[in-house]
Amino acid sequence: MIQEVALLHIRPGQTADFEAAFAEAQAIISTMPGYLRHELQRCLEDDHKYVLFVWWETLADHTEGFRGSPEYEQWRTLLHHFYYPFPTVEHYQQVLL
Amino acid sequence: MIQEVALLHIRPGQTADFEAAFAEAQAIISTMPGYLRHELQRCLEDDHKYVLFVWWETLADHTEGFRGSPEYEQWRTLLHHFYYPFPTVEHYQQVLL
Repeated sequence: MIQEVALLHIRPGQTADFEAAFAEAQAIISTMPGYLRHELQRCLEDDHKYVLFVWWETLADHTEGFRGSPEYEQWRTLLHHFYYPFPTVEHYQQVLL
Repeated sequence: MIQEVALLHIRPGQTADFEAAFAEAQAIISTMPGYLRHELQRCLEDDHKYVLFVWWETLADHTEGFRGSPEYEQWRTLLHHFYYPFPTVEHYQQVLL
């Protein structure tokens, strides 16, 4: 299992519209192969900043499966215009200590 | 419940030492009032980058309680010398959609 971490900066004044669009978009990602679960979280220090976590079975489920799918075009159309600058997306795996 | 998110960049060649120090340090944070749980995760795109998640009951449990405690000095001594640059630490709360 890997965790996608996307730090999202929303354009000024557009957070309510972004959250409404995300409520619609989350139905898209939730159907993708390898998708496990997701969380959208709002930053307490900056109310235009969010972090999106998506848990995937494998890295390729996100980077090849989802990003290469027709559904990704719908996701992009719904969400990408809210972001400025364009988000950094990275993937993490738990260190067991 | 709030989630602390700390993006950590470890100095070159020091990741094994950092993980060993973190294994010791996590015993410190786990005893603090308001602490719920934590995860250390390693970035798949950059093996010197980590993210530390700590779940706290309230923001003040972290920013006032832990950071104002004698235990924080031990934590800092164990870990802070591994970080360059010094991490950005923010707090997030789940958006329920």
